[in-house]
Amino acid sequence: MTAAVTFADVLVAADRIRGLVHSTPVLRSSTIDAELGATVFFKCENLQKVGAFKARGATNAIFSLDPETAAAGVVTHSSGNHGQAVAYAAAMRSIPAWVVMPDDASPVKAEAVAGYGATVVRCPRAERETTARRLADETGATLVHPFDDPAVIAGQGTAALELLEQVDGLDVLVAPVGGGGLLSGTAIAASAIAPEVSIVGAEPAAADDAFRSMLSGTRQPAVPHPVTMCDGLLTALGELTFPILLRHGVSVVLVEEEAVAAACTTFLSTMKIVVEPSGATVLAAMRSHPDRFAGRRVGAIVSGGNTDLAWLRG
Amino acid sequence: MTAAVTFADVLVAADRIRGLVHSTPVLRSSTIDAELGATVFFKCENLQKVGAFKARGATNAIFSLDPETAAAGVVTHSSGNHGQAVAYAAAMRSIPAWVVMPDDASPVKAEAVAGYGATVVRCPRAERETTARRLADETGATLVHPFDDPAVIAGQGTAALELLEQVDGLDVLVAPVGGGGLLSGTAIAASAIAPEVSIVGAEPAAADDAFRSMLSGTRQPAVPHPVTMCDGLLTALGELTFPILLRHGVSVVLVEEEAVAAACTTFLSTMKIVVEPSGATVLAAMRSHPDRFAGRRVGAIVSGGNTDLAWLRG
Repeated sequence: MTAAVTFADVLVAADRIRGLVHSTPVLRSSTIDAELGATVFFKCENLQKVGAFKARGATNAIFSLDPETAAAGVVTHSSGNHGQAVAYAAAMRSIPAWVVMPDDASPVKAEAVAGYGATVVRCPRAERETTARRLADETGATLVHPFDDPAVIAGQGTAALELLEQVDGLDVLVAPVGGGGLLSGTAIAASAIAPEVSIVGAEPAAADDAFRSMLSGTRQPAVPHPVTMCDGLLTALGELTFPILLRHGVSVVLVEEEAVAAACTTFLSTMKIVVEPSGATVLAAMRSHPDRFAGRRVGAIVSGGNTDLAWLRG
Repeated sequence: MTAAVTFADVLVAADRIRGLVHSTPVLRSSTIDAELGATVFFKCENLQKVGAFKARGATNAIFSLDPETAAAGVVTHSSGNHGQAVAYAAAMRSIPAWVVMPDDASPVKAEAVAGYGATVVRCPRAERETTARRLADETGATLVHPFDDPAVIAGQGTAALELLEQVDGLDVLVAPVGGGGLLSGTAIAASAIAPEVSIVGAEPAAADDAFRSMLSGTRQPAVPHPVTMCDGLLTALGELTFPILLRHGVSVVLVEEEAVAAACTTFLSTMKIVVEPSGATVLAAMRSHPDRFAGRRVGAIVSGGNTDLAWLRG
């Protein structure tokens, strides 16, 4: 039996990370409400530390370590927001961090991680996991998985916890789904506070493994080489996250790339916020599946804002 | 004697516009704090209704009208944020609005105003004021000046009022200055709540009439045809706003265009928010005059987010 994650874990996480991450604002747009015929509350994790909700989970995981374990440092493999989040949280705790990145990851992302004082370790893309494990063995550092870790899931659940404290009477919560850390944390928090709220995951149609996993009841592998701008949603559900989503009756809806790009542009031009494609899936989902949201009070977790704006120029 | 604007007027305005405009979030950036050696609280009026603080003043002015006067509608001349704000507030009060715009104003801006149900009236650029006055005479509509109106100034002061309720112990408040509506409202609110706070206006060097007005103690006319991307800060101080700024010992600092463009980019890439050049002057000011802000707790009013992002592509 793998470690269960409970609502109590989310509450403890919220206490642990308070002051280390932002309590992010909830923004509204009457233009978008009118378009959707819904009342939408955007939980802006793009305005979170490191520009993504990942700061919550990584901070909770790293501040959960006992002092001796923590002193040996932490390691992860991620070229995305989780890598930055681990680097940030390790810096906050003043412990060493190693972030394994593939040789072809952008220099900008490596610089962001190094900017927090972490050591960037380059390796061939196929050797990321083994490199991270080897580093952990050699240094005694603790591996911090991007989503399949109870402390990470509990930390991600604090976004929904905050949102449910900020807004009353929600009918639906929608969050992006990649590995399922954010979505499973959201389900745990919501089911405890507001069990009547239905939970919806937004997933790129080009990387639809979570959609098929939930339909079939069997965890599906990641789509190989998916063509999607949602670079934060490429991974498959985890051993821990998948059963949580099943148990809470979470449903997943698919969004096309054009809808994601349009949603990014709407966030920028109408709401004046920068949202990365993975985060814009929530608006794309509401537009693409209007029957699921019309007439309802919707909490939408805008997961991150780290983007080179290629969708703007393209 | 022109009508004085008091702190009581700001408090009444705050009550009057509550629920009609957003209480905007205060955002922070540890990256920017580290760069400036200051503790900066960004009051995000770019996330306000119509994308700018102008919604506050226009809403207060329009909801201050007695029912009979209001029924005849309102008129203004503005191709910028104030035009949208008047259109928005008139729509909220369900009264007619006419917004006079020069023939060469962008269709996008005219569409935004028309989108709120206001009537856009085109005329040659030189005839905007006379056209607005004629419309007021013909229709009985009330002219709502973009800044030199006590109700507008009191409304703009609610941004600082909110910020001072959200953040304790500020040493400095910095806000952009064009006609001086926002800056004078800020001075009135701050001097009543926190008289120890110094008030700084940020002005483009290319349109430095406020800077020269404050230095000389005599109101200077607007710089003719200024070359600046800060399209919201072209006008000179008003008959009402100038004495308020003088009385409160407000100082004005100048910023160069390059610094404004760089600040826009920092807001976008580091803070994940869209800020128009006029609003980015506050960050440019902190960078260009570090001695005024280093070591201090600074409230910076980010005035608006309505931009075509030309500074990003340029």
